[in-house]
Amino acid sequence: MTAKPQSPLPSPLQTARRLAAEFALTAVERDERGGTPKAERDALRNSGLLALSIPTRYGGLGAPWSETLQIVREFARVDSSIAHVFGFHHLMLATVRLFSRPEQWQPWFEQTARQNWFWGNALNPLDTRTVVKDLGGWREFSGKKSFCSGASDSQMLIASAVDESQGGKLLIAAIPSARSGITLHNDWNNIGQRQTDSGSATFERVRVEESELLLDPGPLSTPFACLRPLIAQLTFTHMFLGIAEGAFEEARQYTLNETRVWHRSPARDVREDPYVLGHYGEFWVELEGIRLLVERAAALLDDAWAKGPDLSPEQRGHLATAIATAKVAASRQGLDICSRLFEVTGARATHASLRLDRHWRNLRTQTLHDPLDYKLHELGDWALNRALPVPTFYS
Amino acid sequence: MTAKPQSPLPSPLQTARRLAAEFALTAVERDERGGTPKAERDALRNSGLLALSIPTRYGGLGAPWSETLQIVREFARVDSSIAHVFGFHHLMLATVRLFSRPEQWQPWFEQTARQNWFWGNALNPLDTRTVVKDLGGWREFSGKKSFCSGASDSQMLIASAVDESQGGKLLIAAIPSARSGITLHNDWNNIGQRQTDSGSATFERVRVEESELLLDPGPLSTPFACLRPLIAQLTFTHMFLGIAEGAFEEARQYTLNETRVWHRSPARDVREDPYVLGHYGEFWVELEGIRLLVERAAALLDDAWAKGPDLSPEQRGHLATAIATAKVAASRQGLDICSRLFEVTGARATHASLRLDRHWRNLRTQTLHDPLDYKLHELGDWALNRALPVPTFYS
Amino acid sequence: MTAKPQSPLPSPLQTARRLAAEFALTAVERDERGGTPKAERDALRNSGLLALSIPTRYGGLGAPWSETLQIVREFARVDSSIAHVFGFHHLMLATVRLFSRPEQWQPWFEQTARQNWFWGNALNPLDTRTVVKDLGGWREFSGKKSFCSGASDSQMLIASAVDESQGGKLLIAAIPSARSGITLHNDWNNIGQRQTDSGSATFERVRVEESELLLDPGPLSTPFACLRPLIAQLTFTHMFLGIAEGAFEEARQYTLNETRVWHRSPARDVREDPYVLGHYGEFWVELEGIRLLVERAAALLDDAWAKGPDLSPEQRGHLATAIATAKVAASRQGLDICSRLFEVTGARATHASLRLDRHWRNLRTQTLHDPLDYKLHELGDWALNRALPVPTFYS
Amino acid sequence: MTAKPQSPLPSPLQTARRLAAEFALTAVERDERGGTPKAERDALRNSGLLALSIPTRYGGLGAPWSETLQIVREFARVDSSIAHVFGFHHLMLATVRLFSRPEQWQPWFEQTARQNWFWGNALNPLDTRTVVKDLGGWREFSGKKSFCSGASDSQMLIASAVDESQGGKLLIAAIPSARSGITLHNDWNNIGQRQTDSGSATFERVRVEESELLLDPGPLSTPFACLRPLIAQLTFTHMFLGIAEGAFEEARQYTLNETRVWHRSPARDVREDPYVLGHYGEFWVELEGIRLLVERAAALLDDAWAKGPDLSPEQRGHLATAIATAKVAASRQGLDICSRLFEVTGARATHASLRLDRHWRNLRTQTLHDPLDYKLHELGDWALNRALPVPTFYS
Repeated sequence: MTAKPQSPLPSPLQTARRLAAEFALTAVERDERGGTPKAERDALRNSGLLALSIPTRYGGLGAPWSETLQIVREFARVDSSIAHVFGFHHLMLATVRLFSRPEQWQPWFEQTARQNWFWGNALNPLDTRTVVKDLGGWREFSGKKSFCSGASDSQMLIASAVDESQGGKLLIAAIPSARSGITLHNDWNNIGQRQTDSGSATFERVRVEESELLLDPGPLSTPFACLRPLIAQLTFTHMFLGIAEGAFEEARQYTLNETRVWHRSPARDVREDPYVLGHYGEFWVELEGIRLLVERAAALLDDAWAKGPDLSPEQRGHLATAIATAKVAASRQGLDICSRLFEVTGARATHASLRLDRHWRNLRTQTLHDPLDYKLHELGDWALNRALPVPTFYS
Repeated sequence: MTAKPQSPLPSPLQTARRLAAEFALTAVERDERGGTPKAERDALRNSGLLALSIPTRYGGLGAPWSETLQIVREFARVDSSIAHVFGFHHLMLATVRLFSRPEQWQPWFEQTARQNWFWGNALNPLDTRTVVKDLGGWREFSGKKSFCSGASDSQMLIASAVDESQGGKLLIAAIPSARSGITLHNDWNNIGQRQTDSGSATFERVRVEESELLLDPGPLSTPFACLRPLIAQLTFTHMFLGIAEGAFEEARQYTLNETRVWHRSPARDVREDPYVLGHYGEFWVELEGIRLLVERAAALLDDAWAKGPDLSPEQRGHLATAIATAKVAASRQGLDICSRLFEVTGARATHASLRLDRHWRNLRTQTLHDPLDYKLHELGDWALNRALPVPTFYS
Repeated sequence: MTAKPQSPLPSPLQTARRLAAEFALTAVERDERGGTPKAERDALRNSGLLALSIPTRYGGLGAPWSETLQIVREFARVDSSIAHVFGFHHLMLATVRLFSRPEQWQPWFEQTARQNWFWGNALNPLDTRTVVKDLGGWREFSGKKSFCSGASDSQMLIASAVDESQGGKLLIAAIPSARSGITLHNDWNNIGQRQTDSGSATFERVRVEESELLLDPGPLSTPFACLRPLIAQLTFTHMFLGIAEGAFEEARQYTLNETRVWHRSPARDVREDPYVLGHYGEFWVELEGIRLLVERAAALLDDAWAKGPDLSPEQRGHLATAIATAKVAASRQGLDICSRLFEVTGARATHASLRLDRHWRNLRTQTLHDPLDYKLHELGDWALNRALPVPTFYS
Repeated sequence: MTAKPQSPLPSPLQTARRLAAEFALTAVERDERGGTPKAERDALRNSGLLALSIPTRYGGLGAPWSETLQIVREFARVDSSIAHVFGFHHLMLATVRLFSRPEQWQPWFEQTARQNWFWGNALNPLDTRTVVKDLGGWREFSGKKSFCSGASDSQMLIASAVDESQGGKLLIAAIPSARSGITLHNDWNNIGQRQTDSGSATFERVRVEESELLLDPGPLSTPFACLRPLIAQLTFTHMFLGIAEGAFEEARQYTLNETRVWHRSPARDVREDPYVLGHYGEFWVELEGIRLLVERAAALLDDAWAKGPDLSPEQRGHLATAIATAKVAASRQGLDICSRLFEVTGARATHASLRLDRHWRNLRTQTLHDPLDYKLHELGDWALNRALPVPTFYS
């Protein structure tokens, strides 16, 4: 008896595309429902993609950032909430990698790969309501925290608290989501990114061990550690691009299959209407520009990541401007596409069953993470004064 | 015993403002719910404002169009669905006034004023699925019709059907909404204008009497009759402006009361942030431009209406360009305000409880009534060739 | 012997149109040449229009500001340099009217009307190089001054100097241009507004009498006196609108008479090309918006001027926002028209003999008088905070 | 005796930069003067760069298109007229390479490399005034031709004529510029690209030999031959980018060295003014987007060129869309930068001695070569319908 020839293992991108095709079937309904996309999160767990960015020596798939982010973009084309929690999961892994010692992050990586842990976010440097108390051998986190994306249905959390005894220093810890004292309020109900569970959490005297604190080298300590906010920003940017691409493609299918040519058009078919073609031409120019800016930034991140501790402040700075540039373009031009697409689909495309507005709602919501105006300010400082961005949690 | 001095009767605008203040309290909730705003429609009935545009000699309030439309705008600031059905009601009254004989429209006006009838729309020239059959003394309308705004909970309907025996001629009738054979499907569920009941209707052998047909002078028959589509377009334009004004004011209150200044701002308070002020400055320039264009067009409509049958094609044409100009500006700049406002309110303003996206959804939906591109085409023909718009149901 | 029936005197607008038609013939050539438009300035002198804004009791034509500014706009359609010096002449008259005592300005008005004086500008609050020295009975102005529009070939100058002994207080005087010690350098050579003579001047111990100083009520002293910068700003705004209108009309004639339809167009004639019509439609919407904003502001200025000393700070403030709004719209949309017009005329319209770029060059130059960004800042402060602009020489 | 160590030969880019630095010194003056940049053309001849795109086996430098175009961009940063005639020279070489037989183009290549010939353009498919007559052994070209860029001071010309006996077929020939019967009118005097000599020519019974006709494979005959218009379009696009980059850098130096901060700014120095930084940030985002689109298109052209006759219509089509995309972005965003830069330099930067308007004039002129609207139409047809552009002389 001969062995049936084995089909080769699917690549991560193939796996992601398969999952995306499934997520697409229910994306509209889930946008309406909100809440936790439990089935989809479990599908992600089962797919192995939660180990995507984890090096193979720790049991992961060893993908470079460009590949991980490409998959964020792939998901965002059909469901930007899934893209968000998936991207944040890998951002949380980057956080422990960059801010803690190998004997801390290595076991976390291994366990994540082995047990398909999902990591969630409770780090929000501008929300200073959670404070820390030093109880000798351990610390206690107490207080509230908003915008905790992906914290629900997670195994691990990255949480921050302010140490008022040290002048408001930010402490960051990696802790099991099930740790006693943590309450996730499942109260996210916003106009966009509706299945990201970006609601609030309460910490009631949550015990945090020394070994769970990300102190060495600690947040934003070295140029390499300062990649963390850049990975966050570039994750957003891939989401923005993916949303715009998804919106474009959905509009396109609608125009091709449903839209009627206006009775005053010189064309017989909407596909040849000069104004409809003009809009699509403009969408294309916008999308192509974003695509190249995003792909360039991702390639630069791969380079910077590969440098590790040798990363220079200048290289980190150039990466920061490349990411900020891509982010501004993706935000503005993406919003234009998501709003203007209705002008090439027509009035009937506003039917709620399509929820074609979700692209605009998702993009509008997520592009508010930090103000575009200050990204432009930062880029202006570079363009005019050749001053590279000073690392913060937002740049 | 002396009589208590009577307070003077409130003006229509005062009445509208009182109603608008009430509608505002539930606008967010009703945007979510959709369906028919029964309580609000009844409040409109009780207010007497359904007789606003009806001349006093027929029991109405005798308001000029500029006043009626000002009240459409007033409602649109808080609830553009109400503004829509209210505006369409008066548009339906204009339709009978312009397309039928005095012995037809006068009793309809009188009964509307006396009984606070609400008129709804089932006239859609581009939807040719409803056909008419001549049965000697009467006609029968049969078929489907989409976008029947305000038909639910109405007393009277303006309905159209195509007479295939006369080369597809459009017949328009005013009939009681309760007439046997009419089914309103209450199936409007779109991303915006959610309480306009703009769903579909079915006509099953609906009997229409000769006296209910608007044949003399008939649709688009004279320059004066051709005011009908212009009143429609200008009603939309007032809605667009009202939506933009409402969005602006809601954003302003949020910025003043809720928004935190960004930590990199040179200002201590968001009210002094240079970029926030820059956005508000641009919003102001946009709004002021729209306001003047809209008010100019409304004044020209009053003039044209006053001419009655003496209205010349040229005067009608100039009014058409003034309205188209206002409409383009209100559409584009209104959408900009409704989308960009989030950049001056910040991420927390995306909370679903505010439904601050409804302004964009409402405006986006309603601005698709007919393509902006072809309005610009029309205006270009005027600007370049001095060719006035040829009257159609859309221009 | 019977008198020949006299034709009625032409109105100022008719006179202006006649002059404008003449100026148009040489505008292109004079744009190339630069320098002082001596013949045109003399034609203005002879026309009587230099007395346009002077009340009839002092020998003038008694025009309200709206009429004076309408004529500025009329000139700007064909020659924005002439419009500039003509507008500034009346601004200088307003300056003495608003900042000095009746026994000062009344004779100046009378002499201006009688002798067709032309007034020029040497007031520039941001250029502090000219200082004043108090010599007992008189003062001496010494130093340099830039941007002295219309000073060449003028009879009177409004000049400013800084009094360092009084903490940098600004002193303003009205002096004969021929006064000993004044040198006008005729060195204006800029990319636009090329015949405005906006070059530099040197004051060498120029004697200024007490009676020539505008001290009572003095600059920016009362709300009424604070109309001066607003008249300046609104004069610019009329120039911007006039430039845009002139550019539009010149483009239109070129398209109609010269432009060939592109070989891929669905139209046979450029007049029907969908994209050409789309551009013209957009130009029209822009122009109409500016026109209404400008006309509204001019009407408000007439009202404010009529109030005289009773003008309240609030009324002055509302006028300031109306003017700033019009200015922003006219600047931005005017630039768009002046640059984009080439897309509806085609490559051959770049021939230097047409100098069709002069509209953009003129508008680009003059719109830099004070930064648009800070006008938007000011309007934002009004829109968001309901704070009216604080009067300065630029707002 | 030891040999003095030789310094390595400068690379073409180094040579180009040295030349560009020289051209920059006189660019402003030459923009004013117009006419033929004889000294600069001779410097190009002497530099060897006229052989840049010629393969080494024919005596050239063997540069790929991306390198040739990079040098066009380099020149355009300081002088877009030089960039134009330099780029067109290589386009003419591409024309003979693509449209004629090896035994034709090989000697032309060799002589060009050996004698530093400059090639000029008299090919204009939309100008059909030059006709051809077949005289048995030879042909005669007679008529007029406009837009003959770089024909003056050239050794060779690519000329086109219409063969009316063959239904208006376009014949293209390579002929010595000195050939009897050719008159170049040196009448180019346009608002931009002032030293490109893009004036008119007259052909009076100009004898053209069979061996000078580009008949095999002939114009637009194969996908590979259809690269010719794409090289033209991408040459323009590199010019557009170079102009925008040069304008940006000149503005930047002015802001840094000359511009004063506005007195209402929250910043003490213009380098920190929030609005100035905002503009520079936007310029940066625009420039970066164009740069990537242009560089991507150039790399694709290298690939396509390397395929030679194996180039498929699809690959040619994808290249065409990449070039069109880059062109639209470079046109629109370049114009924005060239016009808006004055808002970050201020009023004094309008001084004619700087001729800072030349960037806008050059870009405005050259972007009119063929209508942007129809490029968008073409891209829309691709984006919506997946229809690749049909090759013409403009796409």
